[in-house]
Amino acid sequence: MLSSEELKRFVNEAKKVAKDGEVATYIPELGKANPNDLAIAIYYPDGSFVSAGEVHKKFTLQSISKVISLALVLMDRGYDYVFERVGMEPTGDPFNSIAKLETMVPAKPLNPMINAGALVVTSMIKGDTVEERFQRLLNFIKELSDDDTVEFNESVAQSEFETAHLNRALCYFLKQHSIITEDIEQLMDLYTKQCAIEMNCLDLAKIGLVFAMDGVNPLTGKQIIPREIARICKTFMVTCGMYNASGEFAIKVGIPAKSGVAGGIMGAVPGKYGIGIFGPALDDKGNSIAGIKLLHLLSKNYKLSIF
Amino acid sequence: MLSSEELKRFVNEAKKVAKDGEVATYIPELGKANPNDLAIAIYYPDGSFVSAGEVHKKFTLQSISKVISLALVLMDRGYDYVFERVGMEPTGDPFNSIAKLETMVPAKPLNPMINAGALVVTSMIKGDTVEERFQRLLNFIKELSDDDTVEFNESVAQSEFETAHLNRALCYFLKQHSIITEDIEQLMDLYTKQCAIEMNCLDLAKIGLVFAMDGVNPLTGKQIIPREIARICKTFMVTCGMYNASGEFAIKVGIPAKSGVAGGIMGAVPGKYGIGIFGPALDDKGNSIAGIKLLHLLSKNYKLSIF
Amino acid sequence: MLSSEELKRFVNEAKKVAKDGEVATYIPELGKANPNDLAIAIYYPDGSFVSAGEVHKKFTLQSISKVISLALVLMDRGYDYVFERVGMEPTGDPFNSIAKLETMVPAKPLNPMINAGALVVTSMIKGDTVEERFQRLLNFIKELSDDDTVEFNESVAQSEFETAHLNRALCYFLKQHSIITEDIEQLMDLYTKQCAIEMNCLDLAKIGLVFAMDGVNPLTGKQIIPREIARICKTFMVTCGMYNASGEFAIKVGIPAKSGVAGGIMGAVPGKYGIGIFGPALDDKGNSIAGIKLLHLLSKNYKLSIF
Amino acid sequence: MLSSEELKRFVNEAKKVAKDGEVATYIPELGKANPNDLAIAIYYPDGSFVSAGEVHKKFTLQSISKVISLALVLMDRGYDYVFERVGMEPTGDPFNSIAKLETMVPAKPLNPMINAGALVVTSMIKGDTVEERFQRLLNFIKELSDDDTVEFNESVAQSEFETAHLNRALCYFLKQHSIITEDIEQLMDLYTKQCAIEMNCLDLAKIGLVFAMDGVNPLTGKQIIPREIARICKTFMVTCGMYNASGEFAIKVGIPAKSGVAGGIMGAVPGKYGIGIFGPALDDKGNSIAGIKLLHLLSKNYKLSIF
Repeated sequence: MLSSEELKRFVNEAKKVAKDGEVATYIPELGKANPNDLAIAIYYPDGSFVSAGEVHKKFTLQSISKVISLALVLMDRGYDYVFERVGMEPTGDPFNSIAKLETMVPAKPLNPMINAGALVVTSMIKGDTVEERFQRLLNFIKELSDDDTVEFNESVAQSEFETAHLNRALCYFLKQHSIITEDIEQLMDLYTKQCAIEMNCLDLAKIGLVFAMDGVNPLTGKQIIPREIARICKTFMVTCGMYNASGEFAIKVGIPAKSGVAGGIMGAVPGKYGIGIFGPALDDKGNSIAGIKLLHLLSKNYKLSIF
Repeated sequence: MLSSEELKRFVNEAKKVAKDGEVATYIPELGKANPNDLAIAIYYPDGSFVSAGEVHKKFTLQSISKVISLALVLMDRGYDYVFERVGMEPTGDPFNSIAKLETMVPAKPLNPMINAGALVVTSMIKGDTVEERFQRLLNFIKELSDDDTVEFNESVAQSEFETAHLNRALCYFLKQHSIITEDIEQLMDLYTKQCAIEMNCLDLAKIGLVFAMDGVNPLTGKQIIPREIARICKTFMVTCGMYNASGEFAIKVGIPAKSGVAGGIMGAVPGKYGIGIFGPALDDKGNSIAGIKLLHLLSKNYKLSIF
Repeated sequence: MLSSEELKRFVNEAKKVAKDGEVATYIPELGKANPNDLAIAIYYPDGSFVSAGEVHKKFTLQSISKVISLALVLMDRGYDYVFERVGMEPTGDPFNSIAKLETMVPAKPLNPMINAGALVVTSMIKGDTVEERFQRLLNFIKELSDDDTVEFNESVAQSEFETAHLNRALCYFLKQHSIITEDIEQLMDLYTKQCAIEMNCLDLAKIGLVFAMDGVNPLTGKQIIPREIARICKTFMVTCGMYNASGEFAIKVGIPAKSGVAGGIMGAVPGKYGIGIFGPALDDKGNSIAGIKLLHLLSKNYKLSIF
Repeated sequence: MLSSEELKRFVNEAKKVAKDGEVATYIPELGKANPNDLAIAIYYPDGSFVSAGEVHKKFTLQSISKVISLALVLMDRGYDYVFERVGMEPTGDPFNSIAKLETMVPAKPLNPMINAGALVVTSMIKGDTVEERFQRLLNFIKELSDDDTVEFNESVAQSEFETAHLNRALCYFLKQHSIITEDIEQLMDLYTKQCAIEMNCLDLAKIGLVFAMDGVNPLTGKQIIPREIARICKTFMVTCGMYNASGEFAIKVGIPAKSGVAGGIMGAVPGKYGIGIFGPALDDKGNSIAGIKLLHLLSKNYKLSIF
């Protein structure tokens, strides 16, 4: 087990690269973050944890939510239903690219971690209304993080809802091809709320731990996510969890992980621990620049790569 | 001047290929057309005309309207304003492609004859409301066709409005890049009404004649479209008027022309006459298959190519 | 008929933009040109001509040769044979792009003015050896320019042969798809010699005049190029003669023309005159920047647009 | 440890899907393989092995060689030199695609498992002559497979050399961008010999075992490949080892593996065993269809996924 002092040292070293990154501004609300923040929490199966940095600062999940909605939808709809509508292949294109969809026959998004695929996944969340579907997802996240107080950030959701024209373009393209069938404004409402779910890195580390333990909450012993689905999610985290730097991250770090543009990274070290990181300064691929550095240091020093 | 008999012979010969084409079905209402119809009207500067086939059948303009809205917008906004927002280059991609937009910097549509460009053009039509803007366009078309009774087909407009998800995808992509700034549903309302403006091939030939006469109605002598703008429109008709068969059409026929998926083709033989054609069976590029054949026969027999 | 003084005025005005362009350097030998040069010759059907600038400076044809080899090959092989192997459509992609080939089925180059298409055209020049095939082309060009002394520039040919890896990539791609079947190094030898054929703008204007006169040398009355083939060539000059600025050039100038990266432009004003221009400073599309300006001035002042 | 009988049962079950595949024909010599063959060998760290099927049939490595040449080149040139010239990212494009290269700046191949990247890797093999460089690679493979008799198949190498125009296109494209600098025919000679290195599935399993044991030959204890480099290779095998089905294979099977179009698959179950498979009937992605099925059965029954 890492000591608090060690973790602080790693955070201090990793923090040095934060100045080379920039906070996301395409969702205006995200632009307000402090680029120098860097926080990490590591949760162990016995319920203990170690942390460093601005641990109590909250951030929105953004793309990290993609792996959680995928788990929920696989539980709700089953493997076949889901993978008829979204593929399993990594892509060398940007996460928000529409061009590849045009050349694919059928126009199925390549994987659930790019925006097009994540939108299809969210459209598969069960429920009669946006509110009901969102509560299903939120309750799932409350259970995963073992924190009943998790909510979404209304101003971030609103900010993204008003500006997410590229996501609307992806949705209408997929609607043209009958991959998405519901009303698009309704789906955008649900999706932007999903992305705006907010927590601190302690909660995020607890979710990472559930994935690390094959879907089980190690304290209660409850199988929250079926083992097989947890495995599928971790595989996607490795092959396409870090945007267009997933391949490099797999080689340099080798931990199943998913990042989001608000600066969060959730990591799952199989059988060992869950990691939650928050560092809003992003590199040019959209990943937390100091967060990646921090994971690099941890992986190298503790031989955490699964490869 | 062609005799009515000659024109009938050409129509009969051209009609033979109609069976190799298919009526458009992506707008459900268009699927109801009779694939064997083939009509043509030719208008001369002296007001005389010759025609053959189902001359009084009405059809919606669809993409033919793109060249007319371009003329109107160039008159309203001027050359610089318009061409800052839409390019002048032909493209080898399909008319409804979105992929190229992603690789262009800035994301400006390549030309006003592809859907992305036409949507930008329509968004530039002046007026405070959709109704007011649509009436401006409709009045312009009434003047061009010298027919006060021209209207739009509500069921075709409605049918397209409900299914035009690909056009919505293009619009939102362009809104993301600030090329389009208005509300998209409003623009779709205006655009689908524009496409659904309906007339017969006699009226269409009269519009073609105005372009052929450099923007002048030869009977009244009125310059409806400034000479320079008429020239620009005819140039686009040659370089990109016939979808992805524009190059082949320029070589085989060589007449400035614009086609639409309802089966219409408007032709402008410079200084000589205007042509209106209706033949709803389309080839695989989206052009009236018998209409193209008919223009081929006319061009070859009367040496109409501008080249 | 333009006076020599007028032409000089136009040249002086056009020359001002030369400083905004740059000479091509991708073929190292071309980098030696003087960016301030600007020459023009205009030939009339009666054999008279007017000229201005560095009229006797020689330059290599480069892409201008594409339209001449196309004429020769159409004469040798016929319309069907040629257009089974190369298309007729303009493309919005760069002239040396390979990406579009990969998405086309079959992998036929879109038109004979892009490099891929021009290489296919050159591979169709008849003859048993490279030498024999090259002489056929050179003799054709001697006849068109009515100048027996035309030769190719060996150091330019050599320079291009050594560096034309992108053209080799295109060739091998086309060989994979059986569009080109001959030995590639042999084809590269022929093609780089073709591009390196050298003349001054007086000779180039005489070739332009033959195209302007529908294939006839107006002084001898000889039909050097069949009328139909001259028409096809002029159509390609309009739809794709000026690289990726062809659409804009058609709108702003409207003269059938073909440019090359050595700074030459050949123009053909139908029925009126041939134009030869040399101005090696290029714009970002690869066209002579001052040459385009000069044609713009001429077209505007003398209403030369065919549209 | 699996019994021979179990393995036979798995082979028999997997073999049923062979009829849905087809042997590769793009290299003419490969078309001679028997589509019904299916062989597997599994090597354990203690030197024992179990096998089933046509175990002694030889096949050429083809793309499997890509991961071995990568290991050699990383040992020869170091991490930085290699990854300045080839990337680390998976791609959703076909393994022989050239289009993506055109849109990348710089034009660096996305990863060493696609053809473009593998050609760059092979061009980095040290040595003064093709023969010397090939012997270096061959000796490395002899050591990895602990088999001095391994050679390359001359007729397969020749067959590929004569037909590999697409690879030549990739090479010249990369030469244009100075990613490859050597003579292309020389590189093709080396590359086609590399791809034609031939062995049976017993030898291939022994190579897989070295990767599984972090680069160590477990019988001699010798570190043939540095641990770090073995880890990098296994990571690429997961993210892009199975052509455009790598993502699906990671989810369904989860074993680091590399396939070739001759029907071979090398697998490395970390710490446990090496796998060699030969089944020449391929699925539409280019992987051994029965081989994939066999690995699926093994992974499911023995929980071999690393995720």
